[in-house]
Amino acid sequence: MALIVQKYGGTSVGDLDRMRNVARRALAARAAGHDVVVVVSAMSGETNRLLKLTNGISARPDQREQDVVVSTGEQVAVGLVALAIQAQSGSSASARSFLGHQVRILTDSAHANARIKSIDDSKLRESLGRGEIAVVAGFQGIDEHGNITTLGRGGSDTTAVALAAALKADACEIYTDVDGVYTTDPNLCKGARKLDRIAYEEMLELASLGAKVLQIRSVEFAMKYQVPLWVKSSFNDDPGTLVCKEEPGMEDVVVSGIALQRDEARFVARDVPDRPGLAARIFTALAQANIVVDVIVQTPSHGGHTDVAFTVAKIDLDRAREMMAPLAKELGIGAIEVENDIAKVSIVGVGMRNHAGVASKMFQTLADEGVNIRVISTSEIKITCLIDEKYAELAVRSLHAAFGLDQKRG
Amino acid sequence: MALIVQKYGGTSVGDLDRMRNVARRALAARAAGHDVVVVVSAMSGETNRLLKLTNGISARPDQREQDVVVSTGEQVAVGLVALAIQAQSGSSASARSFLGHQVRILTDSAHANARIKSIDDSKLRESLGRGEIAVVAGFQGIDEHGNITTLGRGGSDTTAVALAAALKADACEIYTDVDGVYTTDPNLCKGARKLDRIAYEEMLELASLGAKVLQIRSVEFAMKYQVPLWVKSSFNDDPGTLVCKEEPGMEDVVVSGIALQRDEARFVARDVPDRPGLAARIFTALAQANIVVDVIVQTPSHGGHTDVAFTVAKIDLDRAREMMAPLAKELGIGAIEVENDIAKVSIVGVGMRNHAGVASKMFQTLADEGVNIRVISTSEIKITCLIDEKYAELAVRSLHAAFGLDQKRG
Repeated sequence: MALIVQKYGGTSVGDLDRMRNVARRALAARAAGHDVVVVVSAMSGETNRLLKLTNGISARPDQREQDVVVSTGEQVAVGLVALAIQAQSGSSASARSFLGHQVRILTDSAHANARIKSIDDSKLRESLGRGEIAVVAGFQGIDEHGNITTLGRGGSDTTAVALAAALKADACEIYTDVDGVYTTDPNLCKGARKLDRIAYEEMLELASLGAKVLQIRSVEFAMKYQVPLWVKSSFNDDPGTLVCKEEPGMEDVVVSGIALQRDEARFVARDVPDRPGLAARIFTALAQANIVVDVIVQTPSHGGHTDVAFTVAKIDLDRAREMMAPLAKELGIGAIEVENDIAKVSIVGVGMRNHAGVASKMFQTLADEGVNIRVISTSEIKITCLIDEKYAELAVRSLHAAFGLDQKRG
Repeated sequence: MALIVQKYGGTSVGDLDRMRNVARRALAARAAGHDVVVVVSAMSGETNRLLKLTNGISARPDQREQDVVVSTGEQVAVGLVALAIQAQSGSSASARSFLGHQVRILTDSAHANARIKSIDDSKLRESLGRGEIAVVAGFQGIDEHGNITTLGRGGSDTTAVALAAALKADACEIYTDVDGVYTTDPNLCKGARKLDRIAYEEMLELASLGAKVLQIRSVEFAMKYQVPLWVKSSFNDDPGTLVCKEEPGMEDVVVSGIALQRDEARFVARDVPDRPGLAARIFTALAQANIVVDVIVQTPSHGGHTDVAFTVAKIDLDRAREMMAPLAKELGIGAIEVENDIAKVSIVGVGMRNHAGVASKMFQTLADEGVNIRVISTSEIKITCLIDEKYAELAVRSLHAAFGLDQKRG
């Protein structure tokens, strides 16, 4: 007997029939003798419907109130999934829903992008002890003042993994509309291949680089607490992909996957006075406004000045621009340049550590296709290039072939 | 400077424009120097949409889970109204939303029909102290175990009056889509007249008898705590109707209003053994199933047996019938007869106490129209007749004229 956390995304609970399907899977695991915690997202489209309402009232809605509104999506879903389990089992004692404030999923107060600080597992333990399937609302928590918070897009994955860690679950299964983690987005590249296993570190880079299967924080949590994480389809019984500790043999593969992130905007702060603390001032200001800064590159100093380039998500562009204008004046920055249509393409693999020439092969492949590289950034297991968005698909396809990831054909 | 609780019903917050209208009214009261608490219902149609979802999963959904789902209607509405106030005032410090568990509106655990046990006013006092308009979700509370509960249809009125009582508010204003309390439903009777004032006792009878302007519990609360209650339209600035203590002069009017309740079902338990405790057994069983029994009439004993007639809402008919069948067998009841299409028409007035002949005038008026009276029930300030539903409108119109309530014409 094991303790399993199953998480179902928006498409997996997209209508009442799909909820019945979720109930069936949860009850099958229960019938196999396992303790089962189900985490659900809002029905697909619901979060956007709710955001449309808040944006209809205010162009920039107060995020505390927005969280009050959008968190109802998951609230509706947990109630309905609990009812579906009860209906299928014929007993109202078979399932019970829990909201963030009922479990007590304590977060900080960064509305719309909150982080989980602690989880009280007592209510859930009691529920499992009574033989119930506990159905927990993803994406939401509560801060120390009792305000409702949400964890940001894809936050239900983080809820699931954090619950699995708190409950010391044997496995965390993430059910979605794809049947695992692929070498790259199959919609972009026909040759994309499903992976049987992938290391946490690789998944982390892929998630942060725009492979939208899992929210990055959920992978961080899973790695930190060594939670075995399965990515599976809720529409078939394929085994999916296991995200786990790095294992011998994984390093034989140089590049495991290729990630693409569109909808980036690039800022370049020109002629920044080269004084200690200036970069900190810029990025602290952006962080305090909850603007996530992605790639940061600083050029060597030239005549007491330096250039600082960084990217933000396109949706944060206006807010970032508004913040940068007065800051530029105050800090004596020469000029702020903004470029809108930027894509970020990255190759990822733990095997990269032991293989030379990976970077040059990437740059050469892009050059052969005539793709100009705007910014380069590297880490131990990934290489990232910023390119014009119009070349995004071409870049992914050519890199996928160049690193031998294309599916073998019969 | 006064403390005012304003409650807006579903049609008053039916879309984003109407929410802006609510924001305007609340801010006007605030600008006049008052402390303002706003209570809102779900956007019109929303509660039914949510109930359709729960009923789509299960013909008889578990009421704990149903409450989890339907309480989201008010949650969305408070977030949006708070945002609308913030947008209009240009400050996010001008309003803050509160849910049942955040105020801490403690109820019993009778899901879907819970009663308020206590209200903690500290969070709201703090909010008002900061100069905010506190926007509170109607209809919902929390039980001592932290489960979400709802107060039953129209429960937002009760939330508003209970908050007004807890905060010792100077007035509670109920905004709705009608501009006050009428002598009878204007849709049924063209001569219907708006009342300037009405006594709590009269409103209580009218509310319980199907004048759907206010939920009955809200009037009970208002009477108990002497909260002056205004019924007003959110679409104009008419003064509306004040529901208040009985005042000298009110008794000069014999009948203040005529109420109609459709969609009733009548049960007759024939040949009930005339033993102490049998009636208690029947009505305790119904009460435990949260079936509200309305008129109860027991005939004098005949040969050690008696007949017990009672009415329930038509929606509870099936559940009541299922409960009664085994009970009839167990208690040795002769037969259970059920009649479906029953209407209840009542005349109400505190002046009735001091005027003879009111009952006979009512019966004669109905007889003149050929309406057969099935059951009669009376209290100090009202007389109720059960009649066939097909005569409902005719009965109301003829009684309205007979008791001199018709509007004077130019």
